[in-house]
Amino acid sequence: MNRRGLIVVLSGPSGAGKGTLLKAACQKNSNIRLSVSATTRKPRENEIDGVNYFFKTVEEFRQMIRDGDLVEWVQYCGNYYGTPARHIEELTAKGYDVILEIEVEGALNIKGRYPDCVSVFVIPPSLEELERRIVGRGTETAEAIQKRLKRARMELKIIDNYDYVVLNDNIETAADDINCILHTEKLKYFRNREFVEEMLGNV
Amino acid sequence: MNRRGLIVVLSGPSGAGKGTLLKAACQKNSNIRLSVSATTRKPRENEIDGVNYFFKTVEEFRQMIRDGDLVEWVQYCGNYYGTPARHIEELTAKGYDVILEIEVEGALNIKGRYPDCVSVFVIPPSLEELERRIVGRGTETAEAIQKRLKRARMELKIIDNYDYVVLNDNIETAADDINCILHTEKLKYFRNREFVEEMLGNV
Repeated sequence: MNRRGLIVVLSGPSGAGKGTLLKAACQKNSNIRLSVSATTRKPRENEIDGVNYFFKTVEEFRQMIRDGDLVEWVQYCGNYYGTPARHIEELTAKGYDVILEIEVEGALNIKGRYPDCVSVFVIPPSLEELERRIVGRGTETAEAIQKRLKRARMELKIIDNYDYVVLNDNIETAADDINCILHTEKLKYFRNREFVEEMLGNV
Repeated sequence: MNRRGLIVVLSGPSGAGKGTLLKAACQKNSNIRLSVSATTRKPRENEIDGVNYFFKTVEEFRQMIRDGDLVEWVQYCGNYYGTPARHIEELTAKGYDVILEIEVEGALNIKGRYPDCVSVFVIPPSLEELERRIVGRGTETAEAIQKRLKRARMELKIIDNYDYVVLNDNIETAADDINCILHTEKLKYFRNREFVEEMLGNV
């Protein structure tokens, strides 16, 4: 059956617990690879090139844009961030399922380039819980919190562009949901057409 | 999240092992109910009304056809066989996932009436294996075997109308595939729209 890996877009409002969820899903499934972004931001202490980010100069990054090497990119706080296409395609060709944690605008670009990608929207159990999680970080000003909450509400409204919705009220259950989606998607007929046709060739 | 059960159409050539597969899937998942057909065939010894079939008189069956109570029906060897709509809808309303084991023509009728239904095509590991299984039953004449094989080839060609394809080379793995499909389908956004909108009502 199908041996090519999936491209999975995962979004959700800040505070939905995407990072922890992905960590848990990876622990249960060694076939997942998280996509590594390219950036012109300077590496922080302990950050490794090719693991946390592909660190690029501004000139290198602009060249990648011109060459169409980036599936999507944004400029944020004076730095460039983008998703390298080759990185994703090499991993899926090897059979790995690549998950891209990405905001809603970027997700639409991924879908444009890879129409067969799978999209998952992670939601918190409730907006009250979301607020609690965002406030609970304790690292932000009241103004920053309000900004995050406003953006979270906006993002929740774009959810109907996504294939699946995963409720993150229990990290283990939600991680199992993610892995079950990956398994099921590989059983889709359109992903196994070649295999079936090869079999039918002998009919 | 979504609490309504799924309607699942399961097809595959004779010899693909659908019966054994369904039994294994049910053993692992108590939320599955197998759809019970209505028939005008006389009950065999040990067959129970409402369990093996809903046994009907010809007049009762024809009345069901006139009332639109059957999702699909066929006449076969002088008897009527059909799928009662109310039976399915009552079970899904209670949250059960109802699996209909049905041939390819019937499956199209189910999809026409229930566009959100999930369709699964079960394939044997190879056509050689299929032949071995059909012949291996040892209960049929050479002519009957040839007829079954011809029909199996025809059915395999209709596979592209189905959502999923499950390769039945290992009964446990294939049963897990079925259950994973059921779980994943319930995470589809369109099946959870109400839940999400209710949540957004508080935004």
